[in-house]
Amino acid sequence: MTTQQLVAEIHKKNSFLCIGLDVDMTKIPTHFLQEEDPIFAFNKAIIDATNHLCVAYKPNTAFYEAYGIKGWISLQKTIAYLNKNYPEIFTIADAKRGDIGNTAKRYAKAFFETYDSDAVTVAPYMGKDAVEPFLTFEGKHAILLALTSNPGAADFQFTNENNEKLFQKVLRTSLTWDNADRLMYVVGATKAEALTSIRKLVPDSFLLVPGVGAQGGSLEEVARAGMNSQCGLLVNSSRGILYRSQSNDFDNAAAQEAGRLQKEMALYLKDKGII
Amino acid sequence: MTTQQLVAEIHKKNSFLCIGLDVDMTKIPTHFLQEEDPIFAFNKAIIDATNHLCVAYKPNTAFYEAYGIKGWISLQKTIAYLNKNYPEIFTIADAKRGDIGNTAKRYAKAFFETYDSDAVTVAPYMGKDAVEPFLTFEGKHAILLALTSNPGAADFQFTNENNEKLFQKVLRTSLTWDNADRLMYVVGATKAEALTSIRKLVPDSFLLVPGVGAQGGSLEEVARAGMNSQCGLLVNSSRGILYRSQSNDFDNAAAQEAGRLQKEMALYLKDKGII
Repeated sequence: MTTQQLVAEIHKKNSFLCIGLDVDMTKIPTHFLQEEDPIFAFNKAIIDATNHLCVAYKPNTAFYEAYGIKGWISLQKTIAYLNKNYPEIFTIADAKRGDIGNTAKRYAKAFFETYDSDAVTVAPYMGKDAVEPFLTFEGKHAILLALTSNPGAADFQFTNENNEKLFQKVLRTSLTWDNADRLMYVVGATKAEALTSIRKLVPDSFLLVPGVGAQGGSLEEVARAGMNSQCGLLVNSSRGILYRSQSNDFDNAAAQEAGRLQKEMALYLKDKGII
Repeated sequence: MTTQQLVAEIHKKNSFLCIGLDVDMTKIPTHFLQEEDPIFAFNKAIIDATNHLCVAYKPNTAFYEAYGIKGWISLQKTIAYLNKNYPEIFTIADAKRGDIGNTAKRYAKAFFETYDSDAVTVAPYMGKDAVEPFLTFEGKHAILLALTSNPGAADFQFTNENNEKLFQKVLRTSLTWDNADRLMYVVGATKAEALTSIRKLVPDSFLLVPGVGAQGGSLEEVARAGMNSQCGLLVNSSRGILYRSQSNDFDNAAAQEAGRLQKEMALYLKDKGII
């Protein structure tokens, strides 16, 4: 999917919501455990209930890998279901991969061809040749970790070289790479104060923002500091939507929470004159 | 496997060789393509031919992921085969994972429980809470990326803060984390000149060194600069062993090359007074 198609979808739905499909079998309604593929069945129910309110879904691959081969089958079915039934929705494999050129090509092939997702999250530590292979696919995107939402982000991402922090260096350097227009960036919502400086470095890029909700980030702050004229934001919520209720009304509860976020997002899009 | 058990194996085999099981279906002898699981069949043949010469095997997960579900089955079978038939051999899932605490636990569970490998490679960019969950398993190890062997390593790993480079900061900081004695580090052989300074920072830790052979690193330089009194090195070769020959004698050719490296390693172990 091209960035233009994603922007069109944001306009259509008045939403820049991304729903994180981080399925934990101990938290889903217990009747799913009788299904042949509980994770896929749960995802399908969530997707069917919420697809009109969001523009992207983001399965974090760790939650699937933890269940071994069965987990990978659930992931593949989930992305295939989205591509078949809701092709206008942006799919992100949140895999945070990063390896040398030769191997990065394999990862790109896995996520863009075998699983056919629109984007994959990539770690920057190994530099240019670990990322560029992800940028050679038309209509596919690498979402580079810049500033993450966890406490450990402070350990290395703020490393200061000549008054430039490592996450800023990652942003600046990555713009010089081949097909940098296919790059997006992960910026944690818990670091909203940094969004203003990040927006200056990458004025045109999409930012994927996790950390709103369960992790304590503010949607309003993120929207005020991070939105550009195309919106340029995908704000993710996972647990706050998925596990709103553990009883039979879990899908309505998920849609209600997604709808609450979508309505708030519509306000910010309107304020900015985008819709 | 504990570090002591690994050291005992190094003594027994006079070797610190790790063989990278990075299987590329376009490079293996064509008769394997008729097998039900060509990747596993090839790995099994390589393992049976070389296990007396090496102390570790390291499948890079990208090569398996690229083949989708089938690839994951091949990976699981390969590690299970090693654990059953050669339990004294150290197994490394070269996955370079890195995600926030909540999610890191899932990855740790995937690689240490579901696939039952002894170690997994982990990326440091997200900091402490992305790594510590991997260190809570008795007899299991996280191998942290410090200085990698690819050209892109220079993009960020040399970021200089108060005369300390990022990879040095990663090493120094990681020693303060819980269960740091279960940490090992990836240090590329193409950066042998940096090994001396790295050894000063982490005198007791094992270093996993890729880049000897196809990538141009020198085994002698690595051994001279990186060996400690316990050996403390695992030197990896992948393509140089796996694809020595594409005809029916591929397994003998692989064993011959592994044997050549093992003999050279024995010399360095002797020089150091370890054997």
